[in-house]
Formats: sequence, C-alpha cells, structure tokens
Amino acid sequence: MQRISFIGSGNVATHLAMSLKKAGCQIVDICSHTFSNAENLAGRVGAKAIHSYEELDQNIDLCIISVPDHAIVTLVNELKHKKFFVVHTSGSIPMDIFDGKFVDYGVFYPLQTFSKEKPVDFERIPVCIESNNKNKEKGLLELASRLSQMVYQLNSEQRKEIHIAAVFACNFTNHLYGIAQKLLESKQVPFEIIKPLIQETAEKVKDLNPIDAQTGPAVRNDAATMSNHMEILRNENDEYAEIYKLMSESILKNKKGK
Amino acid sequence: MQRISFIGSGNVATHLAMSLKKAGCQIVDICSHTFSNAENLAGRVGAKAIHSYEELDQNIDLCIISVPDHAIVTLVNELKHKKFFVVHTSGSIPMDIFDGKFVDYGVFYPLQTFSKEKPVDFERIPVCIESNNKNKEKGLLELASRLSQMVYQLNSEQRKEIHIAAVFACNFTNHLYGIAQKLLESKQVPFEIIKPLIQETAEKVKDLNPIDAQTGPAVRNDAATMSNHMEILRNENDEYAEIYKLMSESILKNKKGK
Repeated sequence: MQRISFIGSGNVATHLAMSLKKAGCQIVDICSHTFSNAENLAGRVGAKAIHSYEELDQNIDLCIISVPDHAIVTLVNELKHKKFFVVHTSGSIPMDIFDGKFVDYGVFYPLQTFSKEKPVDFERIPVCIESNNKNKEKGLLELASRLSQMVYQLNSEQRKEIHIAAVFACNFTNHLYGIAQKLLESKQVPFEIIKPLIQETAEKVKDLNPIDAQTGPAVRNDAATMSNHMEILRNENDEYAEIYKLMSESILKNKKGK
Repeated sequence: MQRISFIGSGNVATHLAMSLKKAGCQIVDICSHTFSNAENLAGRVGAKAIHSYEELDQNIDLCIISVPDHAIVTLVNELKHKKFFVVHTSGSIPMDIFDGKFVDYGVFYPLQTFSKEKPVDFERIPVCIESNNKNKEKGLLELASRLSQMVYQLNSEQRKEIHIAAVFACNFTNHLYGIAQKLLESKQVPFEIIKPLIQETAEKVKDLNPIDAQTGPAVRNDAATMSNHMEILRNENDEYAEIYKLMSESILKNKKGK
C-alpha cells in the first residue's frame, strides 16, 4: 500500500500522515471541511489539499478516514460506491458501518492519545487493524508494521472493549489526577509534589500486574484511615467522598485472593 | 544530623537508611520486631541490629520511626521519655502524637510508593518535613536536602491532604489499570496493548494541568458513546458500570469553563 489519501486533518490524521510519509508512502490527497487545515497538513506531507470527495484521486491503494466518531456515518454515506479500499481510525465505531457501501474496507486504529503539537513515536503506539478482505488485511498488517512494533489483528467487539478500557485507564485516571490537584491546592500544596508518585504508579505496571501493585488503605482494609479520609472529604466535597467510597469498596472486593 | 537510628526495617526504612548512608550519615542502630529483617538491613548499612528499645544508643542525633501506621501510637507510648530527637515517616499520622512524650519531635515523610527490591532515586522523591522545634526543623531540612531536590515544610493538616490526594492519584489510579486489564482480558486482548496509553497519560500531566489534558467521551459530553459503553458494562460487571457512571458525571461537572 503505497498511495494513500486522507479524509480529515485532525490530530490522528496529522500524526498518521506524517509517519506514513516518513515510512516511504506517498500521501496523495488531504480532504477536509476546514480547507486551511487540509492545506496545512498537505504542505507538511507533500500532498494535494482538496475540498470535496469528488476531487479525490481514485487511483490510490488506501483512503484513511480520520474524522470525529459522530461524523463517520454521514461521511460514509456521502462517500459510498467509491472503488478504493477504505478504513476508519476509530476505536468505537464497528467496521460494519461500511457494509453494502464499499467492496473492501477495514479499520486502522492507533491506540494513543494525540496532541497536535507533541511529536509522537509511532513505533511504540499499538495499532489495531481489521478488514473484511483477508488480502487487504495482510496489506494493512504490513503497512502498520512499517510504523509500529505493536500491531494487533482484532475484531470490532474487541476494539470496542479496548476503547472502554482506555476510558478507565486514561480518561478516568486523568480525572483522578485532577481531583488530587484540587485537594492539594485547597491546602496550598503545589501539584508538583505528587507528580513523581503519578509517574511511578504508571511505571510500576510496566512489569507488575495492577492487582499485585495495589497499595493503600483500601487493599489493607485499613478502616480507621478510610473513615478518617471519608470524614475529611465529606466536609470538603461530597462528590469526591462518593468516588472515594465506591473506589475503595471496589478495591477491597477485587483484592487478590478474594 | 549525623548519627541516625531506625525503628523499623520495612520498605521505607530500607530505602531511607541506604540513602542516608550514601549521603554520608552514620546509621547507628536498627531496631525491629523481626530481628532477621533488622540484621539484614543493619548488614547493608553497617549498623547494629537490636531487639529492644532499651538497647538503643541514646547518643544519636535522630531516631527515625518507620513502622506501619497502626503500630506508631503504641510504639511511641513504649518509647516515651527517651531524650533523643524523634520523627516518624507517615503521611497520615499527625505530629502531635509525640506531644507530652518527647521534647523534640517531628515528621520526615517521603512521598513515594516503595517496593523493597526496586532501587529508588531519592533525588526525585518529595520529602515533607515538620518539627515542633524550629532548630530541629532546620536540621531536618538540611538532612532532607542532602537526599532530595524536592523538600517541603508542611504542617500535619497539609500532609494528611497529600495522603488523601495520593490515594486518588496512586491507589485509585492503579485500580483503574486493573479494571482495564480485566475488561481487555475478558475479550482475549492482552493488557500490553494499553500500556503505552497509561504511560502517555501520566507523562502528559508533567507539563499540562489535568483539566487541560482531559479527553474522552465524558468531557466531550458524547452521550451516544457513553450510553453504549454503559450498556456493555452493565452486561459485564455492574460495579464497573457504576464507576463509569460516577466518574463520567464528575468529569462533566468539573469540565473546564463550568
């Protein structure tokens, strides 16, 4: 798969297009509703910026749709009956949205949180691929392997579960960091103080299973500390107290050996 | 503060004694109920292993009590009226437990999660200090600064809040990693796949405030994705569904600009 076009010019499209270019692919067209974004990305990867699907070069090996989830279905309906091989990059949209609209289709889902300005090392980003055509799937596998050392052939149900797991391990975790920050700052303690602990907590599960790395009052069933914490939290913020209670109960229930 | 003894020989005592030794201090006695542990640590830092408080050399600059929280109060009662300067290493025990039992006392709390076997770089571990005696506090500050670049003079109320914040940012976060692992493995997806995302999520808040780094369906108020996730979770595990609901509501409520 050598000649590749993109629909979309957001964070995922940007990092993916640049990495594919670097891996030796030719980026043909960048199509985006926001034409200035398309132009910007096209300029960075030597592609052509276009306004409408009608202008898409049909002579390509792959068209990557990388737009927000809520826009994919409409887009696929507008795009249908193009002859090229098409994939989307979403974790939560099943592959079968292409059903009856394209002959060959699939998914190319990089599992990472991207910021436009922060460079990424694609080698260490897991890529989940899937296709209705086994030959095309082999092609995607080969393409993904040129970018990343972690390539997984997974079905739509598995990909959706990954997306849910990512909400827990990434989105909810970040929210816990935010709660920690608010608690600290309410007592004039800088957020800085807890950053090494945050890094070490993430570091630990590189080698340990989370259940073996679990520490704290809940897993020790240290009722005195927990009720003391709950009392303080109830005075400060009911919502945080509720999260404390639910999470502590869940840790205790799932504790090793139970 | 040059001549230092320890009561306790667990993870914190081990890392602290070894780091103080390396920083040029003399470790005098190691006192522990588990004598073999005391012997082991004493051997590593050139100290004397002892059984009972009566054998403690009184001619020291500092005695560091590093035992589980629930054991501290009893220990302090047994130890009282010794003439030396004493500190404990606990985040959640207030300094005033020493009140009326010692003349000079304080706290030396390293904010990190320690595993006995994993070497630590004390330079990057925040140390929170406190003392009832301003001169001794200066001495603790000087001592802590020989180990770490991050030394904070904080009172007991602030230290307790740090401990609660750490429960959120470390213990609860690790539990979320564990939930992610269970969700993935229920669909035969290896935990490996989400590890780069875990690392990146922790990495991001080195430079960004968590509220600015927040991503995911909740902060986007993406009701379709959330209700789809909830439906799947309710079929798999009610407890996880409840956590999903509470955390998502909390993210939405605390969202930037609200």
